[in-house]
Amino acid sequence: MSSESFETQRAALADVVAIPVTPFAEDGSVDQDVHRALLRRLLDGGIRTLTPNGNTGEFYALTPQERRLVTEITIDEVGDRGVILVGVGHDVPTAVASARHARELGAAMVMVHQPVHPYVSQGGWVDYHRAIAEAVPELGVVPYIRNAQLSGHRLAELADFCPNVIGVKYAVPDAAKFAAFARDAGLDRFVWVAGLAEPYAPSYFSAGATGFTSGLVNVTPAVSLNMIEALRSGDYPAAMKVWEQIRRFEELRAANGSANNVTVVKEALASLGLCRREVRPPSKPLPESERAEVAAIAAGWSI
Amino acid sequence: MSSESFETQRAALADVVAIPVTPFAEDGSVDQDVHRALLRRLLDGGIRTLTPNGNTGEFYALTPQERRLVTEITIDEVGDRGVILVGVGHDVPTAVASARHARELGAAMVMVHQPVHPYVSQGGWVDYHRAIAEAVPELGVVPYIRNAQLSGHRLAELADFCPNVIGVKYAVPDAAKFAAFARDAGLDRFVWVAGLAEPYAPSYFSAGATGFTSGLVNVTPAVSLNMIEALRSGDYPAAMKVWEQIRRFEELRAANGSANNVTVVKEALASLGLCRREVRPPSKPLPESERAEVAAIAAGWSI
Repeated sequence: MSSESFETQRAALADVVAIPVTPFAEDGSVDQDVHRALLRRLLDGGIRTLTPNGNTGEFYALTPQERRLVTEITIDEVGDRGVILVGVGHDVPTAVASARHARELGAAMVMVHQPVHPYVSQGGWVDYHRAIAEAVPELGVVPYIRNAQLSGHRLAELADFCPNVIGVKYAVPDAAKFAAFARDAGLDRFVWVAGLAEPYAPSYFSAGATGFTSGLVNVTPAVSLNMIEALRSGDYPAAMKVWEQIRRFEELRAANGSANNVTVVKEALASLGLCRREVRPPSKPLPESERAEVAAIAAGWSI
Repeated sequence: MSSESFETQRAALADVVAIPVTPFAEDGSVDQDVHRALLRRLLDGGIRTLTPNGNTGEFYALTPQERRLVTEITIDEVGDRGVILVGVGHDVPTAVASARHARELGAAMVMVHQPVHPYVSQGGWVDYHRAIAEAVPELGVVPYIRNAQLSGHRLAELADFCPNVIGVKYAVPDAAKFAAFARDAGLDRFVWVAGLAEPYAPSYFSAGATGFTSGLVNVTPAVSLNMIEALRSGDYPAAMKVWEQIRRFEELRAANGSANNVTVVKEALASLGLCRREVRPPSKPLPESERAEVAAIAAGWSI
C-alpha cells in the first residue's frame, strides 16, 4: 500500500536532489524575483527534485515567516515541473506546523532536519520523527541524518510506525558507516540519498544510494546531472571525472568546518550575475582576495 | 565605563550559574506551578544566578510561546532574589526579539546559544553575536561557545564592538583549549564561566574560570555550592571530593553523547517527588530498569 502510493516520491529521491539557495535583496530580505529566476534556471537545466528550506537555503538563518515564504515561492514556481520536499525542523509543534503548511500547498514530501537539540537519545530520535510523520501521513518523509551514532534499526522502528518514512538523507562522511546503517534499516525499504552531495556520491552509490543532494547544482545543473548519469549507468570512472572537475570548488566549501559552504555557492552565482553574494550570519561573504578563484571555476563550467 | 556599569552582572557570573529544568504537566504543557516551586527551591538553597531557556531547560524543544513563558515565569518568581541571564538563540531576528523581551521584563543579561546554523565562519560568528548584543546595549551578553575551532581573538573583536559582552560560557571539554582561548580573548576582560558544569569546573578554575554552570544544582543546590566554595578558596582537594561524590550521576548524564543529560536530572527530581520525569523528544525518559540507581544517588544527597 504505502510503497505504491509513494512511487512518485521514491522516484524523485533517486535523483539529483537540489537544495536551492535563498537569495537576499539589498535590504536583506528574501529576493523573491531572483529566487524564482534561480528556480526556473534549475528546472530549465533538467532538475526535477527540489528542497526549499535546506541548509544550502540557510534554513537556520531564516525567520519563521521567511521559511513559509520560501516554501510558498518554491511550490508556486515549480508547479508540476518537479517534486518538492520541504525542509522542516526545530521543536515538534513548529516542525508539524511547517509540514502541514507544506501539505496544504501541495508539496509531496518533507525533509526533517536533524534535531538541533543537544541531548538526543536513540528512542527520542524515533519519537521526534514519529510525531512529525504521523501529522502528515499523506506526505513522504525523509529524515536528514548527520548523527553517526544513530543505529539503522531505529529507522526501521520509525518506519514500522510510519510507512510514509520512505527515504533518508544520510550525511555522515563515512561510506562504510552508511553501508552498515542502510543494511540495518533495510536497504530496499528506503530510498537512500547521499546527503553530502557530489564529493561522497560515488562512494555512497557504491554502497546502495540512488540519489544525492546538491548545492553545487545551483551553479551548474549540467555537472550534477553528468555525475548522476554516470553513476546510474555504473560508470564510476566517468563519475570520478566529474568528481575531479568539482574537487577544488567543493574543497573550498568544506574548508574550516564548512564555514563557507553556502558562501562559495553564492559567490559563484554572483560571479555569473545571477544573484547577490550576501549570506547571513553566522556565515559571511568571501573576502575579496578569494573571489577570483571561485569566479574562474564557475566561468570554466559555464563555457 | 562598561565594566563599572556591569558590576552586578559580572559578580553574578562568577558563581554557580543554575540552568533550571522546565517541568511538564501531564498534558505536556509547561507546569507553571511546579516550575515556580523548583525556582523557589533553588533560591532557598542559596542560588543567585539563573538561566531560563538554557539547554537543561530543553530550550530547543520549547515553542516560541513557551520560551517567552519560561522567561516570564522565571523573572517574576526570582524578583530581586537573584540575577537572570535569559537564553536566546535561533535566527538573528528571533534572538533579538527574545533579548528585547528579556530586557522589557527586567533581566540583567542574555546568554546567546551557539548558532545551530551548520556553516559558521569565524567572522560570521562575530556578526551574529554583534547583531544581538547591539540590540540590547544595557544588558550583559554571554556567548555560549561549544565550537572548539573558534579563536579567542574573535571574542575580543566582538567585545571591541560591544562592551556589553562581559562574560563567556565556554563549553569545550578541554581545559588547555579553554586556557588558550581565555588568554587570546583577554583573561581579565571577561568573566569565564565553565560551561560543562561540575565535572570540568576544577580544571577550568585552575585555568582562570570563576563560575560554572550547573544542571545538577536542580537536584541539590548544596552540592554545587560546596564545590564553588572549595574552588573559591583554592582548595582543589575539597572540590575533588565533591567531584567524586557526583561522578556517577554526571557519567550517567554524559553517556551516549549526553543522550540523557536532562533525563537523569528530571529522574532524580521525580524520585524526590519534585516534578514529573517527562522530557520532550528527541530526549526520552529513562527506562524503568535504570531509575533505581538515579533515585539512590539523589536520596543519598538529600540526607
